[in-house]
Amino acid sequence: MDYGSETLATLVKLFSRMPGIGRKSAQRLALHILKSDPRDAERLGKTILELQTKVGFCESCGSITEAPECAICKDVTRDREIVCVVEGPQDVLILEKTGEYRGLYHVLHGVLSPIDGIGPDDLNLKSLEERVEALNIKEVIIATNPSLEGDTTALYIRKALEAAPCSVTRLARGLPMGGTLEFADDVTLAGALERREKL
Amino acid sequence: MDYGSETLATLVKLFSRMPGIGRKSAQRLALHILKSDPRDAERLGKTILELQTKVGFCESCGSITEAPECAICKDVTRDREIVCVVEGPQDVLILEKTGEYRGLYHVLHGVLSPIDGIGPDDLNLKSLEERVEALNIKEVIIATNPSLEGDTTALYIRKALEAAPCSVTRLARGLPMGGTLEFADDVTLAGALERREKL
Repeated sequence: MDYGSETLATLVKLFSRMPGIGRKSAQRLALHILKSDPRDAERLGKTILELQTKVGFCESCGSITEAPECAICKDVTRDREIVCVVEGPQDVLILEKTGEYRGLYHVLHGVLSPIDGIGPDDLNLKSLEERVEALNIKEVIIATNPSLEGDTTALYIRKALEAAPCSVTRLARGLPMGGTLEFADDVTLAGALERREKL
Repeated sequence: MDYGSETLATLVKLFSRMPGIGRKSAQRLALHILKSDPRDAERLGKTILELQTKVGFCESCGSITEAPECAICKDVTRDREIVCVVEGPQDVLILEKTGEYRGLYHVLHGVLSPIDGIGPDDLNLKSLEERVEALNIKEVIIATNPSLEGDTTALYIRKALEAAPCSVTRLARGLPMGGTLEFADDVTLAGALERREKL
């Protein structure tokens, strides 16, 4: 489309490549920036330019941090005998929000996906085995997403840690709170029936 | 929320202020930029920084352009006796996409909205009257949005151009193609009944 401006067209194109942003949303964002306070636009541009140089990943667990080690790994009040394995840094944020978990994390930065050519060496897996041994971890909770890839990755990790003296668990499967049987998919419903709990 | 990084937290905050972007989407966008190719992130940041300095509005019609006058106003093959009045630059893009309109545009950069303190002087209205006279315009098509503010603005323009020797029209109202009576709102349906057309 002819936006009347190369710069605007470029920005729309760059935004529309981002996850969850279609052409119309990209256009709306770009026009919003065009009309916004110049100081806000400058702050946004500069923050994006700084992001990758300032922000890195924790050398222990792979979480987001601006220091070599993240705040959770440095926090001595946390339970250091339990580690929760997640796919991406966003999952750490989600789990922390529940306030239920007080152990450490380990971020894989992906999942096993042969179809996309992603194997064990492409993930932050080797260091998980090293950490489990070095920290004398008692339990590894696998919190990959409930998907084919997430389950494959979970099974791979269980096998990789077979020799380690720790238990390996994964998040419970079943009906989500607030959902209805009517809208649950077959796999979820069949699984919930099979894993039924005593009341 | 603790993102483990001030820079990331700032970017999430800036994105979540944008139209149609909630906290979760903002987080997804910021993490996407963090993980993206450094050249892409740099290009995005720089384009945003350049946007407001490079891109401006046509001094004739108010459309987006990087030159003093936009491509449509400069195009001698377009019908220069008809002008279509729209709320924002995005509306020019939308109407151009239909390929149905060959006249000029006039971008108001807003709508009359007493509740938000937006009066005639805040819009690109004065120059519309001047253009209608200078270009000897024969028809002014008002294409403001079908809303209370859009209609108020349309009526204001009709009144302002009362003395001008041009006809003032507005886009047809009625049922949208592909819609169903069941899901049409009362105002649309009542209006469609009132403005029924001979078959």
